[in-house]
Amino acid sequence: MRRKIRMGMIGGGKDAFIGAVHRIAANIDGQIEFCCGALSAHADIARESGEELYLPADRIYTTYQELFEKESARPAAERMDFVTIVTPNFAHFEPAMMALDHGFNVVIEKPITLNLEQAKQLKQKVEETGLTLCLTHTYSGYPMVKQARQMVKEGKFGKIRKVMVEYPQGWLSRLSEREGNAQAAWRTDPAKSGKSGSMGDIGTHAAHLSEYITGLKITQVCADLNIVVPGRALDDDGNVLLKFDNGASGVLVATQIAAGEENALKIKVYGENGGLEWHQMEPNTLLIKWLDEPAQVYRAGQPYLSDIAKHNLRVPGGHPEGYLEAFANIYRNFALTLQAKAAGNTPTEEMLDFPSVEDGIRGMAFIDNVVASNSSDQKWYDHKI
Amino acid sequence: MRRKIRMGMIGGGKDAFIGAVHRIAANIDGQIEFCCGALSAHADIARESGEELYLPADRIYTTYQELFEKESARPAAERMDFVTIVTPNFAHFEPAMMALDHGFNVVIEKPITLNLEQAKQLKQKVEETGLTLCLTHTYSGYPMVKQARQMVKEGKFGKIRKVMVEYPQGWLSRLSEREGNAQAAWRTDPAKSGKSGSMGDIGTHAAHLSEYITGLKITQVCADLNIVVPGRALDDDGNVLLKFDNGASGVLVATQIAAGEENALKIKVYGENGGLEWHQMEPNTLLIKWLDEPAQVYRAGQPYLSDIAKHNLRVPGGHPEGYLEAFANIYRNFALTLQAKAAGNTPTEEMLDFPSVEDGIRGMAFIDNVVASNSSDQKWYDHKI
Amino acid sequence: MRRKIRMGMIGGGKDAFIGAVHRIAANIDGQIEFCCGALSAHADIARESGEELYLPADRIYTTYQELFEKESARPAAERMDFVTIVTPNFAHFEPAMMALDHGFNVVIEKPITLNLEQAKQLKQKVEETGLTLCLTHTYSGYPMVKQARQMVKEGKFGKIRKVMVEYPQGWLSRLSEREGNAQAAWRTDPAKSGKSGSMGDIGTHAAHLSEYITGLKITQVCADLNIVVPGRALDDDGNVLLKFDNGASGVLVATQIAAGEENALKIKVYGENGGLEWHQMEPNTLLIKWLDEPAQVYRAGQPYLSDIAKHNLRVPGGHPEGYLEAFANIYRNFALTLQAKAAGNTPTEEMLDFPSVEDGIRGMAFIDNVVASNSSDQKWYDHKI
Amino acid sequence: MRRKIRMGMIGGGKDAFIGAVHRIAANIDGQIEFCCGALSAHADIARESGEELYLPADRIYTTYQELFEKESARPAAERMDFVTIVTPNFAHFEPAMMALDHGFNVVIEKPITLNLEQAKQLKQKVEETGLTLCLTHTYSGYPMVKQARQMVKEGKFGKIRKVMVEYPQGWLSRLSEREGNAQAAWRTDPAKSGKSGSMGDIGTHAAHLSEYITGLKITQVCADLNIVVPGRALDDDGNVLLKFDNGASGVLVATQIAAGEENALKIKVYGENGGLEWHQMEPNTLLIKWLDEPAQVYRAGQPYLSDIAKHNLRVPGGHPEGYLEAFANIYRNFALTLQAKAAGNTPTEEMLDFPSVEDGIRGMAFIDNVVASNSSDQKWYDHKI
Repeated sequence: MRRKIRMGMIGGGKDAFIGAVHRIAANIDGQIEFCCGALSAHADIARESGEELYLPADRIYTTYQELFEKESARPAAERMDFVTIVTPNFAHFEPAMMALDHGFNVVIEKPITLNLEQAKQLKQKVEETGLTLCLTHTYSGYPMVKQARQMVKEGKFGKIRKVMVEYPQGWLSRLSEREGNAQAAWRTDPAKSGKSGSMGDIGTHAAHLSEYITGLKITQVCADLNIVVPGRALDDDGNVLLKFDNGASGVLVATQIAAGEENALKIKVYGENGGLEWHQMEPNTLLIKWLDEPAQVYRAGQPYLSDIAKHNLRVPGGHPEGYLEAFANIYRNFALTLQAKAAGNTPTEEMLDFPSVEDGIRGMAFIDNVVASNSSDQKWYDHKI
Repeated sequence: MRRKIRMGMIGGGKDAFIGAVHRIAANIDGQIEFCCGALSAHADIARESGEELYLPADRIYTTYQELFEKESARPAAERMDFVTIVTPNFAHFEPAMMALDHGFNVVIEKPITLNLEQAKQLKQKVEETGLTLCLTHTYSGYPMVKQARQMVKEGKFGKIRKVMVEYPQGWLSRLSEREGNAQAAWRTDPAKSGKSGSMGDIGTHAAHLSEYITGLKITQVCADLNIVVPGRALDDDGNVLLKFDNGASGVLVATQIAAGEENALKIKVYGENGGLEWHQMEPNTLLIKWLDEPAQVYRAGQPYLSDIAKHNLRVPGGHPEGYLEAFANIYRNFALTLQAKAAGNTPTEEMLDFPSVEDGIRGMAFIDNVVASNSSDQKWYDHKI
Repeated sequence: MRRKIRMGMIGGGKDAFIGAVHRIAANIDGQIEFCCGALSAHADIARESGEELYLPADRIYTTYQELFEKESARPAAERMDFVTIVTPNFAHFEPAMMALDHGFNVVIEKPITLNLEQAKQLKQKVEETGLTLCLTHTYSGYPMVKQARQMVKEGKFGKIRKVMVEYPQGWLSRLSEREGNAQAAWRTDPAKSGKSGSMGDIGTHAAHLSEYITGLKITQVCADLNIVVPGRALDDDGNVLLKFDNGASGVLVATQIAAGEENALKIKVYGENGGLEWHQMEPNTLLIKWLDEPAQVYRAGQPYLSDIAKHNLRVPGGHPEGYLEAFANIYRNFALTLQAKAAGNTPTEEMLDFPSVEDGIRGMAFIDNVVASNSSDQKWYDHKI
Repeated sequence: MRRKIRMGMIGGGKDAFIGAVHRIAANIDGQIEFCCGALSAHADIARESGEELYLPADRIYTTYQELFEKESARPAAERMDFVTIVTPNFAHFEPAMMALDHGFNVVIEKPITLNLEQAKQLKQKVEETGLTLCLTHTYSGYPMVKQARQMVKEGKFGKIRKVMVEYPQGWLSRLSEREGNAQAAWRTDPAKSGKSGSMGDIGTHAAHLSEYITGLKITQVCADLNIVVPGRALDDDGNVLLKFDNGASGVLVATQIAAGEENALKIKVYGENGGLEWHQMEPNTLLIKWLDEPAQVYRAGQPYLSDIAKHNLRVPGGHPEGYLEAFANIYRNFALTLQAKAAGNTPTEEMLDFPSVEDGIRGMAFIDNVVASNSSDQKWYDHKI
């Protein structure tokens, strides 16, 4: 019999940003129950956070080791099914490996690990255990992104020729990591964030989105990464020329010093017969352009959408869904997958439509390769894994 | 000690639209636990729906009478705190009265009742019992609507002079109530919906929004209601001239035969020095216009917003929140109010910022008065209660 | 043989606004030559203005009487063909009558005259003389407005059911007529402007546009006109409910106290199968909405447009044409008409597609009727002529 | 005494596109008189075109040699002041040199010549003769572009850090040069167009715009040019990474295979404190973004604009000006310059605000350098002249 899936969480205590987002996303569809957590490396904060979130006292843990140990010891009928890891990048790998070793499925914030090597080890572990790992590349969770992907897949635009993806943010325009901004502090610290700043934090989202929609793979990059704000150790800005495996070319911009921008991820894709345009900040509209015909405004919640888009929508047209619902789509699909596996069924393609450890590896390789390209005088650098 | 608030539900079984929306809205912030329901008038559907939603078998009821009786009999520590009523309009009043009589707080879909008389009785009952009733005029739950209200309140625009509010939908452009559309069927049936169609279903939202943002009250109406699609018994279209209590004038359009429109609620308000514009379908933007200065684009999630707007936001700028989050704001504020009352505290103004039985009465009077105005040859009709 | 058409002008001297617009509009397509003028009631300004505009000294006149007399005396091969009258409303009628009496064709700014009676006399004179009179309702000169009209005419939307037209401006939000604003001064003075302010100045444009696009006639009005800024003698704001001759209903808003608005004329029209939306401030886009299909973005300059739209365009898609080009379309069609008549040909429908004395009469009647409706307690007032 | 400036034209006969645009642009402000032309290399077309445009029979020439000879022989009081050259790229240089040799000022379509060497010779000739040459990079003629430039110049945004400029068109998505499209035919032919297709035709516009607004100079490029449509000889698509002389980085995309795009030139510029965004297809809006403050919507025709923007506007806010007016600004400034020089005055900075032979040289060098960069394996290529 189908049942709610039980979620634990590592990180995401008070004042963290993304942990709260994960909890909301998991809540929305009523398929997941938040049952336990090791919400902070500080015992006090872990405890207070857990209480605030109505966790039972005996399932508020102060280390992830404790979490795995004690949850493993619980009877199957109440044991956590999966753990969400929302710590900074450097603290993804160990708890993820340990989770898998203890038989727990895993949700991880992107980028998946601190480096490519860790990601590969994680992949091996996932394969060995047969457990499920989900990477929260949120933006591919949007229904109109799925509509876009479906229309490309069906060949509506003919062969894809060009991709333009940009992800400008402005929040690192000042040296805010020195002004008490905790989010800025770890993201700009190589030890915690990895070898790239803007490309790791948001460039990987843009790269993933471009591959998700087009069904193509990036094969070469030519990167110009910049440290714009003096005093910073990692790139806060970058421009990358792309080549895809079908010969299409592209441009990817990811910057965190675009003063006045919020989270303005946009993508345009062009094929032989037409193109598409999608803006994350107005996500319920997908503009479809045609040669010699008027452009069309595809809208979320409409009957003419593809099944895959409809599967990822909750309300009729004109009732805007947003970022949290896109995030929730990833959680719902993940939960449906776990339910299917629990019931001994094979998850459908629709259920499995969430980013996996494979996407994590591509993301880590993307970081490696744009950083290497940036250091090189040579124009094109192979995007190998 | 603060605890989760327990919700029951009447109506909202499988295939209903708005019940699911209420459950998502209640889920989002993790302050409410869905514990029981009488989800359909059909016992089978009630049961199946309850099971699908993971309700315990002994809290799946088949009538609302049973729900109130059995929940009343449970120990206080697990008893339902409030009930959400999401049945069609004609079936709001009786369960709401019974809920209050049994000591349960109430959330009701708008319009609050089938007629004004019932709404007045409900108000009296609310006052007698000291319980809390919340009416889900969703659109005033949007953070940028609250920002708009706050700016008007602070006098940024000077005296308000003009209001233009429009709510065009297209879904009743055809006689879909005869084609098996259950939503259309009851909404176009006077026995189930009340004495107005478009004005009851969406005109009341527009009227509420205009009063909520401006802080003014409509005092006179001049209505032109139309049955555009032949064979229909209730207005599916209407245009209303308005007068407000400070002398401002306005226009309100609510129509369900605007072919090709989704849920395109928009409002423009003008004062002596400037004005504001908000579109429900792109709700994270509030356009602020000034005499002789560039217009400003206020955006959800930004640090410069008012406290009341921030209180009703979850994520930083550029991560769009939507309809479900606006709905959730109403539920969260309602839950915070119940928590405060449970703790013996007086709820703050921020907590009490959700539509009440008073708003329900104004809505029912609005329906009465636009219908009377429409039948009258006289230009202006007093909007009295 | 085809030749350039020669234009004279009455009014439009230095510091006037609309005269310069007429001259640019007449210049654009190279079919009209500006040859003479009585550009101001002040002889000095008339002379200086004429010189600045490179008029020959002997064709700079100081009164319109002189203009008609001296131009009449010139040989046919160099005599003015038509005169453009761009004086304030009260000074339209006499020069227009005199022009026709002297055998000159006429272009007049709207509203055509100070009152309906004058407009009717003008119509009689036009008919008697067989000359051509053109009224510059600019907004129907836009190519995408013509595209809209054509699509309605072809029945793309089925029967038209509803019209929403709004024309908000903010420039009279203050008593600027007392602060030296000459444009504001005459427009708010009943002796110079006529019996209505906002409705005469811009409401007539909105009414004309709604009839032009739909091909329908307004048959009843219910008007609420307001003097919002204290100290003003004429309405600066108004809201009007409309009925059309096919039973469709409508709303028309024209206001000049919408602080922060520029010239935000917008129209939405809905039929059985779909609807259209056009914004004057982004005039190269026509949004076409459909029941159950994605909306389409029709764009100026595209091959899929109707012939009538293409006839009124100069450059390919993506090269925005604007207000001056819309104005120029009226002048070009007028010039083509005069050229055809001069050659003894019957002008085509395409050439005759500019507002005429008939439209002027409908406009004056609209002013009369909304003013009468506003003074009446009765809801509906017949829009009779 | 000030007088109208007399224009001749080479090229631009019937069926040509850009010639008509130049004539309209020259007409608009009534400062220029079109007096003669050698409008086609085909004598018949040259004659018919001249007649259609009302040129006197004795000033319709069939070769540009004839034009220069005969105009030179006319008395100064009626002789042409300048010639506009609107032939394909390969036919710019010779008539331009000859014009200067005969003492005529020159307007040339961009790109200025077929190659850099010609452009340098032209510059030398301009300097020797003291005559004026104007290059029609239309897009810097827009008033809101001038507003943008002014705000950057005044330091409103602090140091400029990043530029994103894109110019997607879709009209070469098919091999239309083989289907009778004359515009496509010469633009895709290296002998007529020069060594680049998309970069020459539109990339130079984008490069010029980015330098014009920022006041910076591009110092390095890293180009990826593509021939997307098989069978074509020149690039129809390109992506270029940029470095500017203050260290800012940038991305420039120019493509003519972006199916469904019209002429969608857009630019975003970011500085330390804020940024700006402008779209050519909605040119009357300039979006100004700020760190921590709401973005502002600067609009054409508003009193708060800079003097330089106002100087290039004709009508009040809300009356959209477009491409032809931007073009006309270049002609008007050029005419004002000639008038000033004719009167023995030094032209003001405002008058001289049109692209010059210097801009032409930078454009030709840009073409050379992106083509060279594209052929190179090295990442960065110096943008030297």
